[in-house]
Amino acid sequence: MLAEIISVGSELMLGQLVDTNSSYLAEKLSSLGIEVKRIIAVGDELEQLTEVLKESLGRAQIVILTGGLGPTPDDITREAIANVLGVPLVEHAEIASKLRERIAKYKGHIGASALKQALLPASAKPIPNPVGSAPGILAEHEGKLLIAMPGVPAEMESMFERHVKGELERRLGERKSAIAVRILRCVGLGESALTERVSDIAKRYANVSIGSLICGGEVWLRITVMANTREEAKKLLEDVERCVRERVGEYVFGIDDEALERIVGQLLKERCLTIAVAESCTGGLVTDTLTNIPGSSSYVKGSVVAYTEDVKRALLGVRAETLSTYGAVSEQCAVEMAEGVRKLLGTDIGASVTGIAGPTGGTPEKPVGTVFIAVADERGCICRCYTFGGDRRGIKERACKALLNLIRKRLLGIA
Amino acid sequence: MLAEIISVGSELMLGQLVDTNSSYLAEKLSSLGIEVKRIIAVGDELEQLTEVLKESLGRAQIVILTGGLGPTPDDITREAIANVLGVPLVEHAEIASKLRERIAKYKGHIGASALKQALLPASAKPIPNPVGSAPGILAEHEGKLLIAMPGVPAEMESMFERHVKGELERRLGERKSAIAVRILRCVGLGESALTERVSDIAKRYANVSIGSLICGGEVWLRITVMANTREEAKKLLEDVERCVRERVGEYVFGIDDEALERIVGQLLKERCLTIAVAESCTGGLVTDTLTNIPGSSSYVKGSVVAYTEDVKRALLGVRAETLSTYGAVSEQCAVEMAEGVRKLLGTDIGASVTGIAGPTGGTPEKPVGTVFIAVADERGCICRCYTFGGDRRGIKERACKALLNLIRKRLLGIA
Repeated sequence: MLAEIISVGSELMLGQLVDTNSSYLAEKLSSLGIEVKRIIAVGDELEQLTEVLKESLGRAQIVILTGGLGPTPDDITREAIANVLGVPLVEHAEIASKLRERIAKYKGHIGASALKQALLPASAKPIPNPVGSAPGILAEHEGKLLIAMPGVPAEMESMFERHVKGELERRLGERKSAIAVRILRCVGLGESALTERVSDIAKRYANVSIGSLICGGEVWLRITVMANTREEAKKLLEDVERCVRERVGEYVFGIDDEALERIVGQLLKERCLTIAVAESCTGGLVTDTLTNIPGSSSYVKGSVVAYTEDVKRALLGVRAETLSTYGAVSEQCAVEMAEGVRKLLGTDIGASVTGIAGPTGGTPEKPVGTVFIAVADERGCICRCYTFGGDRRGIKERACKALLNLIRKRLLGIA
Repeated sequence: MLAEIISVGSELMLGQLVDTNSSYLAEKLSSLGIEVKRIIAVGDELEQLTEVLKESLGRAQIVILTGGLGPTPDDITREAIANVLGVPLVEHAEIASKLRERIAKYKGHIGASALKQALLPASAKPIPNPVGSAPGILAEHEGKLLIAMPGVPAEMESMFERHVKGELERRLGERKSAIAVRILRCVGLGESALTERVSDIAKRYANVSIGSLICGGEVWLRITVMANTREEAKKLLEDVERCVRERVGEYVFGIDDEALERIVGQLLKERCLTIAVAESCTGGLVTDTLTNIPGSSSYVKGSVVAYTEDVKRALLGVRAETLSTYGAVSEQCAVEMAEGVRKLLGTDIGASVTGIAGPTGGTPEKPVGTVFIAVADERGCICRCYTFGGDRRGIKERACKALLNLIRKRLLGIA
């Protein structure tokens, strides 16, 4: 089963936006066993998109578009699809009535042009949008499947997960062929060191590749295998994954879409524990990340971002002597911060992070990227020191992930 | 002058890599006045790449490829170009001798297969690679220009800057047309309402387009103009920008790459003011965003993430009566949080945000997305209420941007 992906948006032609939707979709389609043959990006031009769409439908059985479904005049995906299908655009009554409600509710904030989003090619079906107002479009054309989703990544991703993926699986049925992919999400070792340790494994097999990717302070090792059947692919993937874990298992915290903050949240919830964080160099990122998980208010009580020594002393109870003797970026300070925030907010666990995010503030003994993290609980307090590379944001992200991972290990009794 | 960009690599088809090369090149070409009409990505398949290349040369005057120039068997860009040009691959003596030197020098590390990189289509010229071993390829075909560069971003970028850019400029010569682009970054009004207010402006001019984009809780209006000369384009852009600002100027906080947190930081720094934030539903995101700016430790003293009513009362001094009468998501609570954190951390400005990020917790009067933000300073405290759409993360981002914008306006004396 062959697919092509089309991204629509003049911002792509101007280089103002990197097309992340296509790689998201390519990965998802591949893991379903659908082979992506071509990815095309075009601007917001009706004639051009119509042409591209026709060409793709001529080559592939599945064509997936993202972008151009919004309410503004430069959103031309609906028209292009209607052109290709040779049908008019008609208003979908149910969607239109929902949009009218929204327009009435957010008077002034949402304009009447939003109604354009209720237009659908006559022969197409809407795909519900779980997080936004523009529905997707599902159409069939001469035995080919055409799916259009919004360009906003969060909307596209949740629409794909909730509605499109199942639709594709239904249609694939028994014809499902066999690509299997596994991501091993790692924290605590750099990308080159991780890949060097596993580089020979892929060579042992035909049709196995191991790629790597740096993503939000984590390193992702991606194992891709191909086989004749799903069972063979699954078996092969398990073999390779076992080999990889033998080498670097201690750095693997989760697989595929298992976010570290979700794993930590689940552990806290299961154990009925509460947490508070004292953040210095991460500036709130750790707590922001923890609270991205729905329901996190049941275990996150709160945090203190202590960006100055004053605040570390006054709120967290870090001793003046600690700051003058060891400095704010020290094991001693990290420990006092973790214990301090645990006491201040009355939680089971207190976590802390203090370091130098740069670009200035480094010294020969404590260069930019030096970070201390600590976790305090009833058993005491543990602390780790890292020296991270990267720019200011990269160091914040790595420090955040390292702290979340230390919390995870502490909860599992392995730190 | 029209161009197309082709990215080559099976990792793109598997979604293992995001194609950043294309957006880099699209931006560079646009700024030279070359219009990018299509961006295509294909896997490492000779037949397919040959076909794509032929099609692109049929539509555009300039075709730029990246990827597939390395020494391994799946590097097929050279062959595809030779196919299209109808010429054989021949060894380039000078490049081959340099490669032989490298192979001898790094014995064991570089294999003999590296010599493949000395092969060039007979009628093509090599483009020097300033940072790697694979040269690029420059060829002409029926009056069209074809350029191939390596896929490694650092190699591609330095090859473009040092050699390709100048070549393009020479060829453009007097035919140089000019594209000018301006992004107006907006907060506080939805995408559809913003674009409706300016939709007629582009129609008044030939060669002017106004697009829009939702990006991290902001709406970006993108003005693109084309003209014969750079000066004309600049003048035209200024005219259009003035018209747009007349309509929606109150929502515009910055242009192009001006981040809101940088603007707020600059204002605080200039005025020698310090700030503290009390965050509820944003969970630390506001402070994380503020502290992404290098040097922010000179004005950010810290923050309290008060995720429970306990913490709001105990640390921020929100009155129990306020919570029981109005609830934690209320103007009264937001005001007490802002004043409380200002007092607690002894800053000039205290800011706060409290709301319902969802997906649960909404009520008919206060649905998911209801957010109160407040800014307290020596003049008193101001508060705003919003109802944001989107998922949990989207609501956090919109609330964060709304608060940063209210701080900006307060500092400028316009709120």
